[in-house]
Amino acid sequence: MIPRIGTGVDVHAFAAPESGREMWLAGLLWPEEVGLEGHSDADVVCHAICDALLSAAKLGDLGSNFGTSRPEWAGASGEALLVETIKRVQAAGFQIGNVSVQLIGNRPKVGPRREEATANLERIVGAPVSFSATTTDGLGFTGKNEGLAAIANALLIGS
Amino acid sequence: MIPRIGTGVDVHAFAAPESGREMWLAGLLWPEEVGLEGHSDADVVCHAICDALLSAAKLGDLGSNFGTSRPEWAGASGEALLVETIKRVQAAGFQIGNVSVQLIGNRPKVGPRREEATANLERIVGAPVSFSATTTDGLGFTGKNEGLAAIANALLIGS
Amino acid sequence: MIPRIGTGVDVHAFAAPESGREMWLAGLLWPEEVGLEGHSDADVVCHAICDALLSAAKLGDLGSNFGTSRPEWAGASGEALLVETIKRVQAAGFQIGNVSVQLIGNRPKVGPRREEATANLERIVGAPVSFSATTTDGLGFTGKNEGLAAIANALLIGS
Repeated sequence: MIPRIGTGVDVHAFAAPESGREMWLAGLLWPEEVGLEGHSDADVVCHAICDALLSAAKLGDLGSNFGTSRPEWAGASGEALLVETIKRVQAAGFQIGNVSVQLIGNRPKVGPRREEATANLERIVGAPVSFSATTTDGLGFTGKNEGLAAIANALLIGS
Repeated sequence: MIPRIGTGVDVHAFAAPESGREMWLAGLLWPEEVGLEGHSDADVVCHAICDALLSAAKLGDLGSNFGTSRPEWAGASGEALLVETIKRVQAAGFQIGNVSVQLIGNRPKVGPRREEATANLERIVGAPVSFSATTTDGLGFTGKNEGLAAIANALLIGS
Repeated sequence: MIPRIGTGVDVHAFAAPESGREMWLAGLLWPEEVGLEGHSDADVVCHAICDALLSAAKLGDLGSNFGTSRPEWAGASGEALLVETIKRVQAAGFQIGNVSVQLIGNRPKVGPRREEATANLERIVGAPVSFSATTTDGLGFTGKNEGLAAIANALLIGS
């Protein structure tokens, strides 16, 4: 029952407003927002959690599991990648203790939908998830509205 | 006794030197330094620890606990926020295992006051705290002296 | 047997291509790549792991252990620093549970050498290590090819 820790950071740039890209974060559509660039739905929250979980379980990362050499995952949603990640982590003999993820950027304002987003992530992950947010006081690419970052940690209970 | 992990990042911009803002970090005054911008004392070290602890305990984040909708906390010091965070984490049934926090930026030089700052944080937190520092080799907003970042992790022993 | 968590971030700028600097990452030479600036080999992966381990064990950080006031470590390789860090962590009574480290930047492409790099890190650390990589979608200093960052977490089993 030795715990295992994993960490994951993900970043995507905002798309041009005229692109019509949808914003997906934490597995939810944010209809008032301009979306993020990416071949997938660019859900930085789900992606960071996937990388943290895969790292904790020593199963590689998003690229090695779902990257360009795995065309069957091209365009998959963040939720779909997270569902599959959970399966692979459990198949490797781990239980998920908890996940902590923080969104870094100016928008969307997470507060009004924090509980909904948290509940959605816990539905997918099947373990406690905390979803928080912060800004960077106008500094860096997140402060200048160029993109969003997410940082996640996962704790697994080992086999 | 399942452990819970939490992560928190905080960033504040440096104030203009002529602003007379004081620098507060790790609950200490750094009298030789130019302060950071913020409605509060902008103590990125205490703020990152608060967010890591709140996330580990699934109690929201700085914004939901102490933000603009909680005007009684307007202008509160980083230490005051951390004291209250500890109370809320303990009231939720958690013990604090340890906290690891790293300051990212060019100044202040932490070395000469590391032990003092660590002792101060441990006095507040009541558990082992590590306080480290790094620079970013002249890159990004921390390298260009635009601001400071802190990244924290907390490990709780669950109820 | 209470676990302890530690976090560490490290950043180095790319050297000028004409500098002839070698790139060392994860204790390996990457002969096709331009190196990183630094007094040492600038191995951000090893450095971030060192800081995470030292922080988890409450043993200070890279600067306090191996910095300018410790000239015997000037120019030491990332592997040498990591070997010594492991010794100090173990001498303080801790066992290493696992380490998770993520390289953030555009190059090198980690995929083809991930297993080799992971095996090398596990040989040095003597415990499970996960080595992952991500890009920042063209944003920030990592996205603009100015440098590389690494973020690491370590979990120790306490004495």
